[in-house]
Amino acid sequence: MSLKRAGELELIRRIRAATVVGAGGAGVRTGIGDDTAVLQFTPGAAVLATTDLLLERVHFRRPQASARDIGWKAAAVNLSDIAAMGGVPRFALVALALPPSTELDDVEAFYAGMQEVARPHGVAIVGGDSSSSPYGWMVNVTVLGEHTGTPRLRSDARPGDLVAVTGSLGASAAGLAVLAAGRDDARAAGLGPRSETEVLRAHHRPIPRVAEGRWLGAAEGVHAMIDCSDGIATDLAHVCRESGVAARVELARLPVPAAAEEVARVLGADARRWGAAGGEDYELLITCEPGAAEALAQGLAAATGTALTVIGRIERGAGVAFLDAAGEPVSVGTGWEHFVG
Amino acid sequence: MSLKRAGELELIRRIRAATVVGAGGAGVRTGIGDDTAVLQFTPGAAVLATTDLLLERVHFRRPQASARDIGWKAAAVNLSDIAAMGGVPRFALVALALPPSTELDDVEAFYAGMQEVARPHGVAIVGGDSSSSPYGWMVNVTVLGEHTGTPRLRSDARPGDLVAVTGSLGASAAGLAVLAAGRDDARAAGLGPRSETEVLRAHHRPIPRVAEGRWLGAAEGVHAMIDCSDGIATDLAHVCRESGVAARVELARLPVPAAAEEVARVLGADARRWGAAGGEDYELLITCEPGAAEALAQGLAAATGTALTVIGRIERGAGVAFLDAAGEPVSVGTGWEHFVG
Repeated sequence: MSLKRAGELELIRRIRAATVVGAGGAGVRTGIGDDTAVLQFTPGAAVLATTDLLLERVHFRRPQASARDIGWKAAAVNLSDIAAMGGVPRFALVALALPPSTELDDVEAFYAGMQEVARPHGVAIVGGDSSSSPYGWMVNVTVLGEHTGTPRLRSDARPGDLVAVTGSLGASAAGLAVLAAGRDDARAAGLGPRSETEVLRAHHRPIPRVAEGRWLGAAEGVHAMIDCSDGIATDLAHVCRESGVAARVELARLPVPAAAEEVARVLGADARRWGAAGGEDYELLITCEPGAAEALAQGLAAATGTALTVIGRIERGAGVAFLDAAGEPVSVGTGWEHFVG
Repeated sequence: MSLKRAGELELIRRIRAATVVGAGGAGVRTGIGDDTAVLQFTPGAAVLATTDLLLERVHFRRPQASARDIGWKAAAVNLSDIAAMGGVPRFALVALALPPSTELDDVEAFYAGMQEVARPHGVAIVGGDSSSSPYGWMVNVTVLGEHTGTPRLRSDARPGDLVAVTGSLGASAAGLAVLAAGRDDARAAGLGPRSETEVLRAHHRPIPRVAEGRWLGAAEGVHAMIDCSDGIATDLAHVCRESGVAARVELARLPVPAAAEEVARVLGADARRWGAAGGEDYELLITCEPGAAEALAQGLAAATGTALTVIGRIERGAGVAFLDAAGEPVSVGTGWEHFVG
């Protein structure tokens, strides 16, 4: 049934049913259904708050992204911001504007996608807003988290630090490239189904590095931390600007997964540039004391199973330079920037 | 300069300049510029969280609504939700999607409008998101507040309670009617400039009843509380449904201001229906013990200068009935509902 036939009250009933707070709902004194949510955080904790807007035709396209994918990603990108502070995500609010022709089943799939990524972290959906949209889908998610220690800021990088990233970079951009080229065309050009699945999943269902963020945020020797949402060319530039430092990154050290390299080979693209400037990988980028990097990598792998790869170094100065194998600076393009171009 | 020429970084610089946290920024450990805001609430307080999405051509039209109006209203509607819980608003996050042709001056006017309504309440803008929009303006504001006592819920109404509202009802709908009819046509039909200004201001720049909400939320004898965003036909129905009760409202007792009555007379409309179902007045509606109403009205007027008017009564049963002067039920239409019609 469409929203137009079902009406707003039925929509809200479905949303309440889809967001029932179960065992994960500690701290929810009042959830969806009143003027505001009423929430209890851990005594003494600072509250972390982040908000992200996702628009159809800007941040995703339908039907390439399913309703479940959109829900997953809208939650994941916000959880990733909490992870980047080393915090614990607790609660989510969801504002949703939908065309009247939207099927209620798709709305439920959207919330199921959110729950799929949020519930394992104990995050409860506690409020929101709904509206008709004369355009496409518009989703705004706000996530509240908490931190009982000292969050790792973008401004904490120091000259001499090493730069390292969790997991791998470039798979999400490879997924976007497959969608842009057309999945059938990419397959016809020789892309294998495993790599296709891997890069599309990376693009539509990124994994927020919540456990990794908590571990790294509490570890000795970690200075700055940020999540990689716009491509490290852009994200590391934020760190440099906020910290008043420069960074050099060796392109050859970027942990680009084999699936992204296969896509690049098939489509005649450069996987390393996806790793440097592609964005939407939602890995964590840290700067750390040089002597601490090896212990951090071992500790993180033992605690979470996730790799930590050193990719460069912080220096005095300003700006981010990418170096090729010969140590020469190369242009990788910039990450995603809204409004321009 | 347009956003397209200025770029995202310049936009963010302007936003940071427009949202510098001054003396009102108590509790802001980290504001705009990191992955999340880091916030300190009053120890022991529960956190209140609310989010609202405003879309061009759904919630407002340009150029009737100026950028400053949009900013004001986006902040005000969220502050009103905090007020309806009897809470103290503290922090705001703002996600903004804008066409690339948008002028930076308009963005600054938007934030100035937000600050104009938020600053007097000590509310700091601590974070957000920005995106290009292929459609019109889209604004999502999340406000976080706090409450050290017991918030007044929609589910707290009891049979025998009186129903009362702060201030007046119907001016915002009258303003919308003037815009729909055309300001020139309304003036030509005899609408005076004072009434025109009053109803347009009510529509574009509603006053959130924050002080009133705190006073009523802490007062003896107040049971349920809600803000009037969708029209009391809809808002009081929420209270009845959540509380498992019915309500009767006497149309003649609705506090409709003279300016709305003048607009109705000029345009051939019924001001009382605007008061009952028009919506967007952002007054507070309470239910209270019958014996407490007079003392509440006197106390609220003394504390805040705002009137409190009894308009009806809570009974056993379900649904909201509006009664005419003869005590006969009349249909007032329903308040705003998305998706349908």
